Amino acid sequence: MSYKTLEPFFKPKSIAVIGASRSPEKVGYQLVKSLIDVGYEGKIYPVNPKADEILGLKAYPNIKSIGETVDLALIAIPAQSVPEVLREAGECKVKCVIVVSGGFKEVGGEGAKLEEEVKRIAREYGMRLMGPNCIGVYDPHNKIDTLFLPRGRALRPKSGEIAFISQSGAMGVALLDWMTMEDIGLSCFVSYGNKADVDEIDLLEYLLHDEKCKVIAMYLEEITHGRRFIEVASETSKVKPIVAIKAGRTMEGAKAVSSHTGALAGREEIVEAAFKKAGVIRAYDTHELFDYARALATGRVAFGDRIAIVTDGGGAGVMATDKLTDEKRGVGLKLAELKEETIIELKKHIPPFAIPHNPIDLTGSVTPEMYGDVIDIVARDENVDGIIVIVLIHPPAMNVKVVDEVEKAYKSTNKPILVASTGGEPTQKILKMFQERGIPSYPEVERAVKAMKCLVDRGKYLKKLGKGIH
Amino acid sequence: MSYKTLEPFFKPKSIAVIGASRSPEKVGYQLVKSLIDVGYEGKIYPVNPKADEILGLKAYPNIKSIGETVDLALIAIPAQSVPEVLREAGECKVKCVIVVSGGFKEVGGEGAKLEEEVKRIAREYGMRLMGPNCIGVYDPHNKIDTLFLPRGRALRPKSGEIAFISQSGAMGVALLDWMTMEDIGLSCFVSYGNKADVDEIDLLEYLLHDEKCKVIAMYLEEITHGRRFIEVASETSKVKPIVAIKAGRTMEGAKAVSSHTGALAGREEIVEAAFKKAGVIRAYDTHELFDYARALATGRVAFGDRIAIVTDGGGAGVMATDKLTDEKRGVGLKLAELKEETIIELKKHIPPFAIPHNPIDLTGSVTPEMYGDVIDIVARDENVDGIIVIVLIHPPAMNVKVVDEVEKAYKSTNKPILVASTGGEPTQKILKMFQERGIPSYPEVERAVKAMKCLVDRGKYLKKLGKGIH
Repeated sequence: MSYKTLEPFFKPKSIAVIGASRSPEKVGYQLVKSLIDVGYEGKIYPVNPKADEILGLKAYPNIKSIGETVDLALIAIPAQSVPEVLREAGECKVKCVIVVSGGFKEVGGEGAKLEEEVKRIAREYGMRLMGPNCIGVYDPHNKIDTLFLPRGRALRPKSGEIAFISQSGAMGVALLDWMTMEDIGLSCFVSYGNKADVDEIDLLEYLLHDEKCKVIAMYLEEITHGRRFIEVASETSKVKPIVAIKAGRTMEGAKAVSSHTGALAGREEIVEAAFKKAGVIRAYDTHELFDYARALATGRVAFGDRIAIVTDGGGAGVMATDKLTDEKRGVGLKLAELKEETIIELKKHIPPFAIPHNPIDLTGSVTPEMYGDVIDIVARDENVDGIIVIVLIHPPAMNVKVVDEVEKAYKSTNKPILVASTGGEPTQKILKMFQERGIPSYPEVERAVKAMKCLVDRGKYLKKLGKGIH
Repeated sequence: MSYKTLEPFFKPKSIAVIGASRSPEKVGYQLVKSLIDVGYEGKIYPVNPKADEILGLKAYPNIKSIGETVDLALIAIPAQSVPEVLREAGECKVKCVIVVSGGFKEVGGEGAKLEEEVKRIAREYGMRLMGPNCIGVYDPHNKIDTLFLPRGRALRPKSGEIAFISQSGAMGVALLDWMTMEDIGLSCFVSYGNKADVDEIDLLEYLLHDEKCKVIAMYLEEITHGRRFIEVASETSKVKPIVAIKAGRTMEGAKAVSSHTGALAGREEIVEAAFKKAGVIRAYDTHELFDYARALATGRVAFGDRIAIVTDGGGAGVMATDKLTDEKRGVGLKLAELKEETIIELKKHIPPFAIPHNPIDLTGSVTPEMYGDVIDIVARDENVDGIIVIVLIHPPAMNVKVVDEVEKAYKSTNKPILVASTGGEPTQKILKMFQERGIPSYPEVERAVKAMKCLVDRGKYLKKLGKGIH
């Protein structure tokens, strides 16, 4: 039940901000501001011996003087002063601490020693510690925001079902910012930095029990405890899928990891084997990470590798087919062979010159209704395990109604359906509409195809676990 | 000099629109409208026996009645009537014809016969014919627009240096729309459809002589005359780079090509060998096509495979390094080993805890000025053939000034520099600014790395031709 000890990071009833400041350019100001901006509902205690009030909140000279229970303390003071404050927090029975400050292991020498001390103190008092050198937690559901970057500088995604945990703070912030633009929902974000105490394994355990989270996306540079990682990741991935980037997979990349965090990236073959054993789905770039997570968040998987493609652009259909069936440069899935009765049924709903076999090409004479009818028919074909729907919105009779039509068909089946559409702003609008209705959508056919592969792999994994029976 | 015969497609002094209409939902209306909207400066003659005037222009009952030279005729009437009108155009000495109408080879049987007839007539009268079943030409420099899709439905990119020719009209339109959003400049666009006469080879010859065009991007489904393609593409690629997608590269993809256009996709090994021989750079998806074209449009190439990475996010630097050096999943280039004097010089301009070796990590303490100084120093290192600059805009001291700084350094060197930046709207704005200053920029580090590989390959090719000496 050790994951319970992490709860105050996500659901603290009170937060002390050590190093709170009145100067907007200071981290200690922004920490208080972010908590206010996110609408944190518990008590905030700014701690600063030189201030009476910060951002309208009564300030305290030290933790002791608060005189109330503190669930979580955020620490943003120079590294050398952290041990002393940490002890004070321990004396005051603070449950969890996020050390935002840098200047520890990542700078080597004295910093590394300081980190050992900090670790020891936290253990001594039974406090859970996140960081140092991290940006902590953003949880839009529980309204927690310990990110010291102003909202104008780093956008925050809306609430959703994808948990994102990142060893790198900068990578985390860049991707949160990007997720916001892409309208991708977040269950929670954690940047855990040097992981003196709380690491990716602890977080996996916590997220396994967090109901809001349906998928876990990870950015990792280092896996410290391989065996335990496999153990916990295996348990977790049985219940919710894990997608992970493991950076530093090449010799040169591993060197770069060690020179910027002092961590050992680990041998690529070992990581590969560990991921496979634990059922962790691997992503190789940031788009893949969230393309896969979004597809998995629907809860639908493909229990087979026979995929149907529905398109209104012949060329896009060919490109999708290439990517789908190519073993080397593509994902090596199969183009589903439609049953004779499916083809007969399709012909009733599409123009005579349209193509009723896979890839199904509705041509420029397409209507939104055609998409609804065709997907519905194809989804009922037992030879089809998943459908990729390519929606080019330029043909004369096309309009936003296509979203309703696809959604109707989507709801009438359990099979995974992924949408792809290429084009400018009007296309982007439609992509977002699909996204809002819970249907994963992608700006390039190849990305939808890769995401489908991920659903096929997940289906295979669940089958292996004996969970594949519908 | 046969390419000269194509000039009236791009620079016609007068255009007749056969099948011009007063009804906005008709193709024949939109053809006239698109010419007016683009600001076409020659004469437009709408031809329609039932109208006196169309969109404020005097209409003519037939081509003969125009009584003036017609350089280009656009034909948008039912397929069966095309031969007759084509003969009339021939009699009236029309130089070039774009047959927009469908219903030819792509529908098989009677359509194929009709196409043969159309071909014969054009040849008989010495007219060049584009299509049938195509959307023709959009040339923002010469102000020609034969696209029958309203501007509200299909956006038009700004003028630029990339020519884009596409066998598929739908793919062409979707990508023009996307290019507009991405702010990618176009020298001209051609959709040549069934290529009864004008094909990709003719267009390559024309573009070789078109000064506005610096790079050629192609979407191909079929190469009909392999040997001649290699010949002309080789000549062209000596002068300007060609990047091409060849769809239908898998067995299933090839089948899809033949079922939607009746074309033979050709054996993949042969295409691969032909491209290699002709120096055509291959793209496997639409992002690659334009990512590469944009990098090549700068005119800079890498005369070696030793790449430097400058970043302000450690994680992003590691990801770029992985992609750069990985032979299997990446591009297999080398991380440049910086000279000792470069490192000494770098240390003078970056914080003590920043990383002065490749990948160079400026950390969250980065300033815009640091980018200028560092790129400048690195570009002077003889061990560096190209630079990837990763700009995360979230650190406190970062702002749009970084664009000026990078531009200054960019201008002080001949080596290729590609920028990558991940994030939401503010990041997208910065990416566009780089783009506008002529510095290719990408929303994901991996895409910048792949584009750099393309510049390395182009450098190798030019060296082989004896053009590598600076």
